[in-house]
Amino acid sequence: MAVDLEPDPVVADLARRTADFVREVVIPVEERGGGVVRDDSERVRLQRAAKEAGVFAPHVGPEFGGHGLDMRARAVVFEEAGYSLLGPLALNIAAPDEGNMHMLELIATEEQKRRYLAPLAAGEIRSCFAMTEPAPGAGSDPAALSTRAARVGGGWRIDGRKWFITGADGAGFAICMARTSGDPGDPGGATMFLVDAGNPGMKLVRHIDTLDESLYGGHLEVLFDGCVVPDEAVLGEVDEGFRYAQVRLGPARMTHCMRWLGIARRAQDIAVGRAAERELFGSRLGDLGMVQQMIADNEIDIAAARGLVLQACWELDQGRSASQATSIAKTFSAEAIWRVVDRSLQICGALGVSGDVLLGRFLREVRPFRIYDGPSEAHRWAIARRVMRRHDKAARP
Amino acid sequence: MAVDLEPDPVVADLARRTADFVREVVIPVEERGGGVVRDDSERVRLQRAAKEAGVFAPHVGPEFGGHGLDMRARAVVFEEAGYSLLGPLALNIAAPDEGNMHMLELIATEEQKRRYLAPLAAGEIRSCFAMTEPAPGAGSDPAALSTRAARVGGGWRIDGRKWFITGADGAGFAICMARTSGDPGDPGGATMFLVDAGNPGMKLVRHIDTLDESLYGGHLEVLFDGCVVPDEAVLGEVDEGFRYAQVRLGPARMTHCMRWLGIARRAQDIAVGRAAERELFGSRLGDLGMVQQMIADNEIDIAAARGLVLQACWELDQGRSASQATSIAKTFSAEAIWRVVDRSLQICGALGVSGDVLLGRFLREVRPFRIYDGPSEAHRWAIARRVMRRHDKAARP
Amino acid sequence: MAVDLEPDPVVADLARRTADFVREVVIPVEERGGGVVRDDSERVRLQRAAKEAGVFAPHVGPEFGGHGLDMRARAVVFEEAGYSLLGPLALNIAAPDEGNMHMLELIATEEQKRRYLAPLAAGEIRSCFAMTEPAPGAGSDPAALSTRAARVGGGWRIDGRKWFITGADGAGFAICMARTSGDPGDPGGATMFLVDAGNPGMKLVRHIDTLDESLYGGHLEVLFDGCVVPDEAVLGEVDEGFRYAQVRLGPARMTHCMRWLGIARRAQDIAVGRAAERELFGSRLGDLGMVQQMIADNEIDIAAARGLVLQACWELDQGRSASQATSIAKTFSAEAIWRVVDRSLQICGALGVSGDVLLGRFLREVRPFRIYDGPSEAHRWAIARRVMRRHDKAARP
Amino acid sequence: MAVDLEPDPVVADLARRTADFVREVVIPVEERGGGVVRDDSERVRLQRAAKEAGVFAPHVGPEFGGHGLDMRARAVVFEEAGYSLLGPLALNIAAPDEGNMHMLELIATEEQKRRYLAPLAAGEIRSCFAMTEPAPGAGSDPAALSTRAARVGGGWRIDGRKWFITGADGAGFAICMARTSGDPGDPGGATMFLVDAGNPGMKLVRHIDTLDESLYGGHLEVLFDGCVVPDEAVLGEVDEGFRYAQVRLGPARMTHCMRWLGIARRAQDIAVGRAAERELFGSRLGDLGMVQQMIADNEIDIAAARGLVLQACWELDQGRSASQATSIAKTFSAEAIWRVVDRSLQICGALGVSGDVLLGRFLREVRPFRIYDGPSEAHRWAIARRVMRRHDKAARP
Repeated sequence: MAVDLEPDPVVADLARRTADFVREVVIPVEERGGGVVRDDSERVRLQRAAKEAGVFAPHVGPEFGGHGLDMRARAVVFEEAGYSLLGPLALNIAAPDEGNMHMLELIATEEQKRRYLAPLAAGEIRSCFAMTEPAPGAGSDPAALSTRAARVGGGWRIDGRKWFITGADGAGFAICMARTSGDPGDPGGATMFLVDAGNPGMKLVRHIDTLDESLYGGHLEVLFDGCVVPDEAVLGEVDEGFRYAQVRLGPARMTHCMRWLGIARRAQDIAVGRAAERELFGSRLGDLGMVQQMIADNEIDIAAARGLVLQACWELDQGRSASQATSIAKTFSAEAIWRVVDRSLQICGALGVSGDVLLGRFLREVRPFRIYDGPSEAHRWAIARRVMRRHDKAARP
Repeated sequence: MAVDLEPDPVVADLARRTADFVREVVIPVEERGGGVVRDDSERVRLQRAAKEAGVFAPHVGPEFGGHGLDMRARAVVFEEAGYSLLGPLALNIAAPDEGNMHMLELIATEEQKRRYLAPLAAGEIRSCFAMTEPAPGAGSDPAALSTRAARVGGGWRIDGRKWFITGADGAGFAICMARTSGDPGDPGGATMFLVDAGNPGMKLVRHIDTLDESLYGGHLEVLFDGCVVPDEAVLGEVDEGFRYAQVRLGPARMTHCMRWLGIARRAQDIAVGRAAERELFGSRLGDLGMVQQMIADNEIDIAAARGLVLQACWELDQGRSASQATSIAKTFSAEAIWRVVDRSLQICGALGVSGDVLLGRFLREVRPFRIYDGPSEAHRWAIARRVMRRHDKAARP
Repeated sequence: MAVDLEPDPVVADLARRTADFVREVVIPVEERGGGVVRDDSERVRLQRAAKEAGVFAPHVGPEFGGHGLDMRARAVVFEEAGYSLLGPLALNIAAPDEGNMHMLELIATEEQKRRYLAPLAAGEIRSCFAMTEPAPGAGSDPAALSTRAARVGGGWRIDGRKWFITGADGAGFAICMARTSGDPGDPGGATMFLVDAGNPGMKLVRHIDTLDESLYGGHLEVLFDGCVVPDEAVLGEVDEGFRYAQVRLGPARMTHCMRWLGIARRAQDIAVGRAAERELFGSRLGDLGMVQQMIADNEIDIAAARGLVLQACWELDQGRSASQATSIAKTFSAEAIWRVVDRSLQICGALGVSGDVLLGRFLREVRPFRIYDGPSEAHRWAIARRVMRRHDKAARP
Repeated sequence: MAVDLEPDPVVADLARRTADFVREVVIPVEERGGGVVRDDSERVRLQRAAKEAGVFAPHVGPEFGGHGLDMRARAVVFEEAGYSLLGPLALNIAAPDEGNMHMLELIATEEQKRRYLAPLAAGEIRSCFAMTEPAPGAGSDPAALSTRAARVGGGWRIDGRKWFITGADGAGFAICMARTSGDPGDPGGATMFLVDAGNPGMKLVRHIDTLDESLYGGHLEVLFDGCVVPDEAVLGEVDEGFRYAQVRLGPARMTHCMRWLGIARRAQDIAVGRAAERELFGSRLGDLGMVQQMIADNEIDIAAARGLVLQACWELDQGRSASQATSIAKTFSAEAIWRVVDRSLQICGALGVSGDVLLGRFLREVRPFRIYDGPSEAHRWAIARRVMRRHDKAARP
């Protein structure tokens, strides 16, 4: 048995069909709207088309209408979906829904799956994941979690402030992470709660105006103010929230990379198209050395990121925590994708900063990825600490 | 007589007063509007305040209400103005008006100065500079100029298409560069024309949707379609347009650097303020090594860019073409400023990509500077060619 | 069948034993001699130890005393061997012998295998590969090949000058690439010749003094001056030399990456060891943010390079030319390995530039890898050209 | 009075004559010996020639046979001297003698000047500066100083270990920094001592084998073991050693930059010469875009470093501590110079790593400059801390 990099033919076929669907159906919608969809009927229309094309919800199990892809297979298919900003929305694999489905599939009760996962997987509702908090709460350091949930008769009462809650506006429910024991700074004791839209204790404070705008439903500030939920709202076990967060975040990091790798490839294709048609100083743009260097560096960055993502996905599929591998893949990919989009824009010159191509939009969309899902600095810190611990352990007699 | 880096006390005082004015008067307006002004009454109000503060139009001669600063002095004052996106507009030293005034002061006739420069310097009207063209016209390679002006009875008829004409919407006049002899690809034979707003042959085709949005009046596509102007519309000599473009572009490159250096410093100040107040992993953000590295690299980039700009300005003030020095200063500064804004945003984390601070806006505004006024690649090409020519000349017996 | 990254247990076991052998037997010799062996009895001693440890010649087939590893398996084992500068010599997988064996195994006649490959695989003799020429001959551009071989009665006469012929001093034979048809600049028409040591027409002109010094036998300038060889000296077919060169160079590029990845890991381990024991400013060095960043970047670079090498090796094992994949992997790896060694040295500070650790030596050894086997610029040029051609082909109706 | 960058004509003339001298007299010696001189008669010969050329010892006052250049003037002249690895030795402005003369001129008594400075300035003797210690002593953190000097009858007794003491072998005297009060980690209480060669308590333990080899006299480990010196050996005031170290180190950092900027220019000239004569893929090497990019980046790096050094020198000449400016200039320059040499070598390809040009030698010589005189990380840390302190001070009411 040797190392094998050939993707399963079934997966390869799904990837090819996804690529065709994105090119033929999604990109025209995306280009018309500048990469941003704000109208729910557009979302519904795209998802219906994806269902018809047989490419919808590839990540969930067949019992939820999907293809049950493991992480390695997602790497191939999600990248094709990510070739358009709206591809993931069309396939129902956009953040945060995709990560929420992943977590629900792993830890929800049958009743919770029926009530939340099934309609979410079908695209009938959307969801959000309420974890990050404004300073000094849970940001780069999850242990700083300050939203609290306290026992009240027959349920829990949640109080706290969350921000950058993607997709909160219009979501059918939120998964809210709150501290159920310990104090901020103490890593133990968080719990995940399912909070239905319309709960009077969950208030959408504002849409945060952000550099990126393509994630459907926007990024919101959400206030939990005496938000009471019943016992059945607990997702998984009480006090196990930090562990579940890792269960969600490792794979979610990788699916972000996959989708943005699609955009990186798209940016490169736009730039190469331009480099092939534009003449400058008597040469084709793509035959000038400095442009060739940018094109080559894009290829290298994309290939290297893909290799790291695959490694991490394989580890996740073996049931390992893969924390070092996902940190490495996320850090490199977020920076590499950024470089690819930036170089592609540079190759296109003035056209690149105009809305006539979507490169400026892509640049805005991928910039925050160096911050969310753990800023590069936090990941580097974690990577180095693991290396030092490994050394300390090996050095100990 | 030794090298001296002490700025003239009069200039230092004007810089100090400019800094105070920007902080007290301009930044509140800027932060309220997210860095963008679209309303002319706001522009007029800001400029009136600048006049009252005695900091208005520092670059033009006293006969036009200014302080007659040379390039070295502008370096100091413009950077202070540039500390806000709206500072240059308030002082009437924003692109493209500032560069146009510079050129008019050098080559306009007395009558042209009275009619165009005087009201422009006073902020009564605005202007635009119609040089760049969509491919395959004049972009990175000015010699590709394809807009033509032909002799007609008592004047000239201009035909061609321009784009990225900043400030064209609402401008009182345009300076249009058109080919009066030779063919595209041939460096000789362009002429500058003054075209009044309202000329029926000059049509604003569209506002180009661009990544940056703070330059007043937007970036437009402009069509010259049988645009007839009288002989008095010729600015300087016929067929000397390429030379005048250099007269305008060398200094204009440097004033762009000066203004954006102000934004770089502002970004760094925002990041340092955040790093001073935010706690993470039990430390002040600004005491964490990777953040210290970003702060230090920002200081280094700003200082290095400033030194290169000063060198180029000194050469320009000696009457030299300074083409190598301005290429070096422009290339390094545009990239350094970009890095500074990018790092500052990274230091601020999620806050940095939100509209709660202006860093995302700054990122969008400075990105195109690596492309306009000559893309980095075109400047590097020019720099290397000059080095090779210098070598060939020295090597020749 | 899904993608699988688990190495074969037999390969994993060989890798483990190789790692033990390198640590216990090779590194003591390496550290004693500063990474350089110049005495053949030392080479023989190391190879004998490798045979006894059952780790010798893993790349050649069992009929030549090896383990018959494919490229994917070599990736794992060669990296372990490369953990010491002398590991590859000990295992008989150092350049250029390893690449020569690879080519001989593929294209030599049975008689040539008996006469050249068998003793080479056993370590009884060494060899060299005489391809690169001083300017204006075959360097980055193989088509510039100017050494010629002309038909003479019953054989060929070779004339030309080669340089950077690694291992030429003491080699039992050379594989010399010479033009048998066409002119320099014309890609067609080279032939590989086996030239025995002692042929009076093959003269060792000088040892080139180079930055790197650890490749056994040094880098030489070799003059072919009326060097007559019989017909049996032709390796493969006449005029097929350029194709054979690719057969040799693609895999040889990858085995260079594998070996140097071992050195990168070693450098990182030395730096981490230092970072764990050294106190500075009241902290352990490895707990300072800027050092953590370097440690993390080393991990990322090593992981990314390894992923790219594996991808290329898998393609080669599928019988593909893998030219794009090997160019990408070589370019990234050569630069990443260089960065890793450079950062590791920086972490160690003054100690790092001293001979008390081998990091300065490693820096000298890996620097040329950004040049040999195709400079980064030549590979980037080739990568971009393939991208453009792919685009042109897809765009053609 | 405006900013002026015109160097004094007297200085410009000295710089020109220095350049001529280096090219005509020094470089032939340097190229013959591969950049390293180990024979004192060669040093004496070079210095005699420099005296005859009127370019010797430009930094010391006329009373010591020099030209009394201030820091700004040194920037111009030292760069010309640094164009060859041996130029500084020839002019007697090499480290550590140059820094020692600077300190002696500022703080020595008349008697000490007569006895130590006069012969040192004349090149009759050499000197060393014994400050840095192996871990856990004074390295990046001077406060860790652990060598101690204790009062004994009529003098002091010094005990401790120093390493990387450049030029110690053959030096006529050492300036030794030892702790006279406080404990390691405590910043206060060091004293400078003049220790004559031959003092039985000062032992040269070993020559440290280092990556760089061109600094005359090598880098040594020195043991002070009951080393007794009289009261007259105290240089400056007791317990003021840390302050004096700063007086020496700020300017010494800058003169290192100046000299290595000369090497950077030399490397660029070698690369440009090669790029002008070498043909590749049918083009002149210097006309290929990726090579042009490297040539341009070299120009930019050199110009930016020069600007930062000038800024710091001007501040030093105004009597300021210039600690931020010298940290910025040193950090940027050390890295920029390294990049320039690395790119120049890359441009030259295989030739670049051979001893046929001195680029590999230059690479080895400049690498340690990113570590000595404060590693880049220590300077970045200091730069950021000053920025944060400035912010804290401004924010305080």
